[in-house]
Amino acid sequence: MKNFKAGLFGLGVVGSGVYTALQQNQKYGISIEKIAVKNIDKERDFDLPTGILTAQSDEILENEDIDFIIELINDPEEAFTIVKKAFEKGKSVVSANKKMVALHHQELLELREKYGVKFFYEGAVCGSVPILRLLDQHYKSDKIKSVKAIANGTCNFILSKMTAENQDYDSALKEAQDLGFAELDPYSDVSGEDTRFKLAIMVYHAFGIFVHPQEIPLEGIDYLDETLVQFAQKHQLKIKLIGEACNIGGKINAKVEPQLVNEKQDFYNIENEYNGILVNAEFTAEQFVKGKGAGSFPTALAVLSNLKDLIYDLAIAKYSIKPNITYSTEIEREIYFIGGFETELSGLEILAKDETYCLAKSDFKELEKLKQKHPNLYWVKISQDIYEIIKNQEVLI
Amino acid sequence: MKNFKAGLFGLGVVGSGVYTALQQNQKYGISIEKIAVKNIDKERDFDLPTGILTAQSDEILENEDIDFIIELINDPEEAFTIVKKAFEKGKSVVSANKKMVALHHQELLELREKYGVKFFYEGAVCGSVPILRLLDQHYKSDKIKSVKAIANGTCNFILSKMTAENQDYDSALKEAQDLGFAELDPYSDVSGEDTRFKLAIMVYHAFGIFVHPQEIPLEGIDYLDETLVQFAQKHQLKIKLIGEACNIGGKINAKVEPQLVNEKQDFYNIENEYNGILVNAEFTAEQFVKGKGAGSFPTALAVLSNLKDLIYDLAIAKYSIKPNITYSTEIEREIYFIGGFETELSGLEILAKDETYCLAKSDFKELEKLKQKHPNLYWVKISQDIYEIIKNQEVLI
Repeated sequence: MKNFKAGLFGLGVVGSGVYTALQQNQKYGISIEKIAVKNIDKERDFDLPTGILTAQSDEILENEDIDFIIELINDPEEAFTIVKKAFEKGKSVVSANKKMVALHHQELLELREKYGVKFFYEGAVCGSVPILRLLDQHYKSDKIKSVKAIANGTCNFILSKMTAENQDYDSALKEAQDLGFAELDPYSDVSGEDTRFKLAIMVYHAFGIFVHPQEIPLEGIDYLDETLVQFAQKHQLKIKLIGEACNIGGKINAKVEPQLVNEKQDFYNIENEYNGILVNAEFTAEQFVKGKGAGSFPTALAVLSNLKDLIYDLAIAKYSIKPNITYSTEIEREIYFIGGFETELSGLEILAKDETYCLAKSDFKELEKLKQKHPNLYWVKISQDIYEIIKNQEVLI
Repeated sequence: MKNFKAGLFGLGVVGSGVYTALQQNQKYGISIEKIAVKNIDKERDFDLPTGILTAQSDEILENEDIDFIIELINDPEEAFTIVKKAFEKGKSVVSANKKMVALHHQELLELREKYGVKFFYEGAVCGSVPILRLLDQHYKSDKIKSVKAIANGTCNFILSKMTAENQDYDSALKEAQDLGFAELDPYSDVSGEDTRFKLAIMVYHAFGIFVHPQEIPLEGIDYLDETLVQFAQKHQLKIKLIGEACNIGGKINAKVEPQLVNEKQDFYNIENEYNGILVNAEFTAEQFVKGKGAGSFPTALAVLSNLKDLIYDLAIAKYSIKPNITYSTEIEREIYFIGGFETELSGLEILAKDETYCLAKSDFKELEKLKQKHPNLYWVKISQDIYEIIKNQEVLI
C-alpha cells in the first residue's frame, strides 16, 4: 500500500495525540511531513525531527508531495482560510474544528464538491462518538425523526457536582476548572454554545438541511441554582444539558436547553466527560451511543479513523439540500421548571408554583421575553412523561 | 445515478421488510428483479408483481442483469451454497445469516477476495446496531481490548420477567413464546448459541482472527432458578446473558455466560428486544451502543445500509489474519454464583455458601466437569467489582 504524506496544522491536545499515534505505529501508512504551529520555539514534551515545524502554512499547502491536510487549530476563521486553500490545491482535509464547520458548513461542502476533494470532520462532534459516520452511512437508508445529545462534558461535570454533592454553580465550575475539565473562560461550554455548534453540524447529517447555529434557541446552565437542584433531588431526577433536533412533518426544530431526566432515560447515566446521543428513526427505532466526548486520545481516534477513510477513498453522499425539508423556528410549547425570578412572573400558563419557582407551559420566545425583565431567569424542560409521574406525587412543589 | 438490480433470497420477516422498503421508496436506487422462495404459492399479506417469485435459485444467480444478491433465508448451508455461487458469478452479496457467517467466516472472506466481490453482513449481528461498521471503520485505527455484548432479545425478555416479576424460567419462556419473542424451539436462544454465533463474527472484526463458535465456552440461561433470582434481588443486581471477547497480551479469550450486573453498568438498562455492545479500546476508551437487536425493520435497515455500501463501493480492509494474535482457550478464573446442585460440590475454591448455592472462584473447564455429576448445575459470573461491594454487606448469602 502506498505510504501517504500529510501536513498537520496545530500541535495542541488533539494534534499531539494524532502525531504521536502516527509516529509510533506504522500501520496507519501515513507520515507527517510538516507541522504548522504558531510558535516553533515553544517547548514541547515530546521529540520532533529537526525542521518538521513551520510557522508558514504555505510550506504545507503549496507542497505538492503532501497528499492531505489534518487541521487541528483553534481559531475557526484561520482554519477556514487554511481548509479553503487546501481544497483549491486539491488536497483532502480531516478537521476537528466544530466552530469552523458549524459556521461555514454549506460553503465548505460546496467547495469540497467544486474541487473534487474529500472532507471529514468526525472529531468535531462528540470526540470519539462516531455519530457523523453513523448518520452518513448507517442511517442514510432510514428516515430520522430526532437526534438528541448530551454533547458537552464540562456541563455534565458541573451538573453532576451540583446534584450529587450539593455544590453551588460557582464552586462546581471552579472545581471543573481546577481539574482541567473546564476552560478558564467557560462561556462557550456553560452557555450551551459548544453544544449548539455540534447540534448544527448534526442537523445537516441527519436531515439534509443547513442551519446557522444562531438560528437554534439556546439556554445554558449558568443561571441554574439550588432551587432547581432541590426539586431534582426530591423527584430523583438529574439535570442534563441536551441539544435536540426533531423532524415534525418535514419541519426541523432544534434547541439546546437543560432538561430534567429520569432513570428510565439513557441520558440519566451519562456523567462527566461522557457524551451520549439518542437517534430515533423510522426503521431502526431508538438507538443510543455513549462514549468519551473530548480529550486528546478519543478525539485523535476520530481523526485517525477519518484519515483511514481518506486512504480507503470512502465515498459519501454528494452535498445536496433536501427539497421538502425546511428549518422552522416555530417551537412547540413544553413544560418547564422556571426559576431565578424575584418578583412574580406574569402571563405564564402556570401548572404549579412556589415563591421561588414554578412549573409552566411555555416556549423559548415567551421565556426570552420574560428574561428581559428578570435577568436571572432560567428554564429547564420537563418531558410530558416525567410531569405525569411527578404531578401525582404528594409533594410536587 | 445508475439504478441497480438485485435478486432477493427469502421473503420472511426481514426479507419482506427489505422488499417493502425498496418498493415504496425510489431513493434507494435498487429494484428487486427476482425473489427466490421455497414455496411460490404461499399466501402473502402484500402484493407482488406477477412472475417475480421463483423456486429456482439459478434464475437469479445465472441472470447477468442482476448486480447483487440479498441473502435472507434461514438455512445456513443452503445460504452458503447460494453465496458461494453468487461470488463465482461476480455478484456482491448482502446477508443477515449469522449462522452461515459464523460457521464459514474464513472461507467466505477468502472467496470474497478470490472473486473480487464485496460481502457485507451487518444484519447478522445485533439487528440494527451497526457494530460491524464501527469495528471495520471507526475502530480500525484503534486497538480493541474487549467487546462485550447482550446480543439476544429472547434471553433478555426471559431474564427480565424472572427478576422483575418473579416468574420461573418455564413460565417466562412460555410468555416470550406467546408474545412471539421466542421461537417454538428456543434452544438456540436460551442455550446461548445464538449469542455465540454473533460473538464469533465480532471476534474477527475486532481482533482480526477467526474462531469457530464451538471453540467458545458456552453457558446458557436454561438452568437458572429462583435461588439465583432471590440472590440478584437481594443485592439489586440483574441477570444478563453476555458474550465477551478480550485481548489479553495478544491472546484472545471469549465466552458466553450469564452475568450479574449492577446499576453502574450500561448493560443494566438493556431490556427486552434491545441489544447493547460495550467496546473498550486503547484510544476511545469505553463506548456503548444500544439498539434493537432483532425484528423486521431494524434488521432490514442494516441490510439497506449495506446495500448503500455496495452502491457507494465501500472499501474495507482486505482479509488478513493478524500474525501476533492467537485464540486461546485458557480462561482466567472468575468469581461465580453457582446453583442447581443437590449434593455438596467438592473441589471448589468456595468464597461463601448456603445449602442451595455458593459463590466460588472457578472456570469453565472445572464447572463443566462438575456439571457431569450435577446435571442441573449452572454458573453466573460476578465481577470482582460487584463481589467487593456485596461481600461487605450484612447478608451476603
